[in-house]
Amino acid sequence: MSLQKLLGTAHPIIQAPMAGVQGSALAVAVSNAGGLGSLPCAMLTLDAMREELAAIKAQTGKPFNVNFFCHASPEPDAGRDAAWRAALSPYYREYGADGDVVPAGRGRAPFSSEAADLLEEFRPAVVSFHFGLPSEGLLRRVSAWGSKVLSSATTVAEARWLEAHGADAIIAQGFEAGGHRGMFLTEDLTTQVGTFALLPQIVREVKLPVIAAGGIADARGVAAAMALGAAAVQIGTAYLLCPEATTSVVHRAALKSEAARHTAITNLFSGRPARGIVNRVMTELGPISAAAPAFPLAAFAMAPLRARAESRGSPDFSPLWCGQNVSGCKEIPAADLTRELAADL
Amino acid sequence: MSLQKLLGTAHPIIQAPMAGVQGSALAVAVSNAGGLGSLPCAMLTLDAMREELAAIKAQTGKPFNVNFFCHASPEPDAGRDAAWRAALSPYYREYGADGDVVPAGRGRAPFSSEAADLLEEFRPAVVSFHFGLPSEGLLRRVSAWGSKVLSSATTVAEARWLEAHGADAIIAQGFEAGGHRGMFLTEDLTTQVGTFALLPQIVREVKLPVIAAGGIADARGVAAAMALGAAAVQIGTAYLLCPEATTSVVHRAALKSEAARHTAITNLFSGRPARGIVNRVMTELGPISAAAPAFPLAAFAMAPLRARAESRGSPDFSPLWCGQNVSGCKEIPAADLTRELAADL
Repeated sequence: MSLQKLLGTAHPIIQAPMAGVQGSALAVAVSNAGGLGSLPCAMLTLDAMREELAAIKAQTGKPFNVNFFCHASPEPDAGRDAAWRAALSPYYREYGADGDVVPAGRGRAPFSSEAADLLEEFRPAVVSFHFGLPSEGLLRRVSAWGSKVLSSATTVAEARWLEAHGADAIIAQGFEAGGHRGMFLTEDLTTQVGTFALLPQIVREVKLPVIAAGGIADARGVAAAMALGAAAVQIGTAYLLCPEATTSVVHRAALKSEAARHTAITNLFSGRPARGIVNRVMTELGPISAAAPAFPLAAFAMAPLRARAESRGSPDFSPLWCGQNVSGCKEIPAADLTRELAADL
Repeated sequence: MSLQKLLGTAHPIIQAPMAGVQGSALAVAVSNAGGLGSLPCAMLTLDAMREELAAIKAQTGKPFNVNFFCHASPEPDAGRDAAWRAALSPYYREYGADGDVVPAGRGRAPFSSEAADLLEEFRPAVVSFHFGLPSEGLLRRVSAWGSKVLSSATTVAEARWLEAHGADAIIAQGFEAGGHRGMFLTEDLTTQVGTFALLPQIVREVKLPVIAAGGIADARGVAAAMALGAAAVQIGTAYLLCPEATTSVVHRAALKSEAARHTAITNLFSGRPARGIVNRVMTELGPISAAAPAFPLAAFAMAPLRARAESRGSPDFSPLWCGQNVSGCKEIPAADLTRELAADL
């Protein structure tokens, strides 16, 4: 079955779910333009999720994707957390911030039975997961009500695992991709493979349709991914400057600057490796630090620094998620961008 | 001008020069099949270089490429060298090797006026460099006798530099590529970009023809690289199992095993970052170690371990250079492989 048939879209183009920089508006625009819009739910409360899903349903009859993380929530580790706040203490002093004030909010929550209850009311055409798949029981519920299930593989071994555990299609997430690495069978970053090498190897090793992600910026990139055997592509970074994205002022400025040429994989902002534009805290503490608390706890200690720095117009403590190819970023409506990406198909 | 016209070949396919695992035989086979065969000279004495160049001239009238490194030779650092040998001392004991015996040979030498004198007698159609370009005077000599000059860029900044300093075409060496990273304007490995992202950005930023390298394994990969704007491709790993390559027994065995799925960039074998299949010494000491002597001096201390391990059939201390995509490796004559790679053009 072709992936377009599986997804129900006109174009084999998925807008990558990007928690923290977009909500329903971007998803609606992409879905209405014939792509597959995505709603990232990792940072939403159940109430916010309901609002966003209702907003999508109200604005499009086209298929859309709802995305969840499915990590195991870590045990709090007060000692490690204190050591990390101590490492950040020079910055707290510099900004007059109180590192002991724990910000409100749930942080990033994994897919849960409560989220499944809510999702069942909406039955989206597609549900995608990051960091593997949820428990067998939860996955069975999602599949039972008819949603097609996607998840990301960063290695051939992860692709085989996803095929064996119930995914309907596999996203081959190359090393170039922005945001969180979907890696879930290893923590060894040397296992991460560029799109050009990863995609054809996964295509060869699994029977499921494969979606290419990482470094795809324009119609030529889409055509190249299809030439390598992709059934569809997932594109994130190119949408970051669209008016429908909620990308912050400092993030937009960084994306438009020469600084965007240099991204790195960092764990400083969440505790798991994710690719973003290199900024001050990444340069000074990492980009990878063994001292960062487990995912998603590292985010809390950085939050007050980020808030204060951003209020001064500084990106020094912000996660500036971004892939290795910003050449496709355009300040145009997401519908136009989607059509441009599909132009050579 | 098309790159094929620039290179004088039937196919836009360059066999990547791979010092230590091939000589004239592979270059001759590829050139006679319509690709551009390459002779790597970094590890050859002047006498050996003359023999190899004469062998090529005797066996093909087609264009070929001669490749040189152009690093600055480091000052010997006895203290650093002693510390590195101390780090390796448990292995010396295990193998009954004497770490103080300096192996014979020049190691890897940079392009020199003596090499230019010799090269001038042969005037190859193409001369390629790794680690930037040689001095202005040497480069002018090479261009003056008519050879076209290629060099590798691992970032957009390096591509701009090569264009400004006299290259005739640029090899965009993606993160996936096996062997030594060509990086020369930075030592920061986080700057290294996957082929899917690097290639189109370099194509956009320079006027010179761009050759794609890294992760290209078969005819579909060649077509995809062309779709991304490449004027030609450079392929190394796929040729490693050809009978004309001098790839060692342990290296061939590793390439054919599941171990080849996991490569990493390491500096343990030469002092500069290079991609190879992960083996014991990479796992135990690195893959990147700040203690490794400067390029190319690190190679000496590893040599006795490599020799002894290989004599027992072990790849534990060998540089198993390899890109991130071995799916194109075939034990077939290089001429057949070259024609297969060009099949979709």
